[in-house]
Amino acid sequence: MSLSYRLHHHPLDPASRRVRLAMAEKKIPFEAIVEKPWDPRPAFLQLSPDGDVPVLVIEGAQDSFVLASSNAICEYFEETSEAPSLLGSDAATHAEVRRLVHWFEVKMYLQCTALILGEKAYKRLEGRGEPDSHILRAGHHNIHGHLEYITWLTEQRNWLAGDAITLADLAAAAQLSCIDYVNDVPWDRHVQAKEWYARIKSRPCFRSLLGDHVAGLMPPKSYADLDF
Amino acid sequence: MSLSYRLHHHPLDPASRRVRLAMAEKKIPFEAIVEKPWDPRPAFLQLSPDGDVPVLVIEGAQDSFVLASSNAICEYFEETSEAPSLLGSDAATHAEVRRLVHWFEVKMYLQCTALILGEKAYKRLEGRGEPDSHILRAGHHNIHGHLEYITWLTEQRNWLAGDAITLADLAAAAQLSCIDYVNDVPWDRHVQAKEWYARIKSRPCFRSLLGDHVAGLMPPKSYADLDF
Repeated sequence: MSLSYRLHHHPLDPASRRVRLAMAEKKIPFEAIVEKPWDPRPAFLQLSPDGDVPVLVIEGAQDSFVLASSNAICEYFEETSEAPSLLGSDAATHAEVRRLVHWFEVKMYLQCTALILGEKAYKRLEGRGEPDSHILRAGHHNIHGHLEYITWLTEQRNWLAGDAITLADLAAAAQLSCIDYVNDVPWDRHVQAKEWYARIKSRPCFRSLLGDHVAGLMPPKSYADLDF
Repeated sequence: MSLSYRLHHHPLDPASRRVRLAMAEKKIPFEAIVEKPWDPRPAFLQLSPDGDVPVLVIEGAQDSFVLASSNAICEYFEETSEAPSLLGSDAATHAEVRRLVHWFEVKMYLQCTALILGEKAYKRLEGRGEPDSHILRAGHHNIHGHLEYITWLTEQRNWLAGDAITLADLAAAAQLSCIDYVNDVPWDRHVQAKEWYARIKSRPCFRSLLGDHVAGLMPPKSYADLDF
């Protein structure tokens, strides 16, 4: 049975980035369609009533169905793809991966990515005025704890959740790559976290992210540089 | 192999409630320990560096390990328990369940539960002053959309994600039961959502939640009433 995949996403949405990384890591080809969640097309609202991304449309010969939310999409491929697992090898590791995915995709997102990207990227894209320096400062303050946590994890383990790369690494890298797009990751103060990021940034799954260009908001040169 | 389970939770934390419902639905006995995430005990910080709940400690004859975050804990029992699945019967249903879990546990939480409970419960418990009426009003406004969504889902399906009860129902009921504890669910305006809630409220898995009493914050009589 031949299936085709169409991913509706936004380049600066970290949950969308996690899905793009996971599908690329599993070598599942897909068509990518950029949506503006803040100004959704009527046709996209048919798929996603609130305009949320990511949404994946899976089309078979006779039928199609729609998956939404990064967890639903990533776990779907864990269940259905024969590519190496991104959840680790046993139930305890799966739990550790899911704990870390929640940590980065919910906690770090709310404490850092939503604040920094909200002020420096979404506000500009949505025409909502100038960045609020207080909000930005909170995001910049909070990011150190998350980079220290990545440092601590990589002192215990090869990758964030254990010996192999997992969805936990992809979730953390998805957040950081969005913040890196606006040049706000203090890499120089977190050398070991930077080494982990350099390892994941040089993987083939990362290539499409490094080619992202959002109109009206160019990334710094270091964003796509593997020797940053 | 005999394992024992110790769940660290807070009665008014909806993610903790989802875990309690899921473990009770699967008939897995556990010891429940109430934590104050805003003022964590040093011993609890050893398990959960930020004081976050829920945390589950699994103790075997020779070893113990720690699971954190509601997704990690609920999915762990999907993988390891022989009780009927709370994820549905096939990969597409699993994805729909996980989409809805995210919808209720992240989106509804941030738009409703965190606002209403934050102002009416956590502020009082933490001694942080009086409720902010603007924040409360936003939570009260947003809850209608979520109750309408539950109504719409139950018009298509027996339970929120399909024919059988799943983690999606438990996630939605966990949010609503917290808001119901402070008497702020407008049931009268959402009769069909109320019927769905009455069905889940009368299940044995709900009994422990209906017995919750937080010191200094009594629930209304209707909270534990099955004929509310």
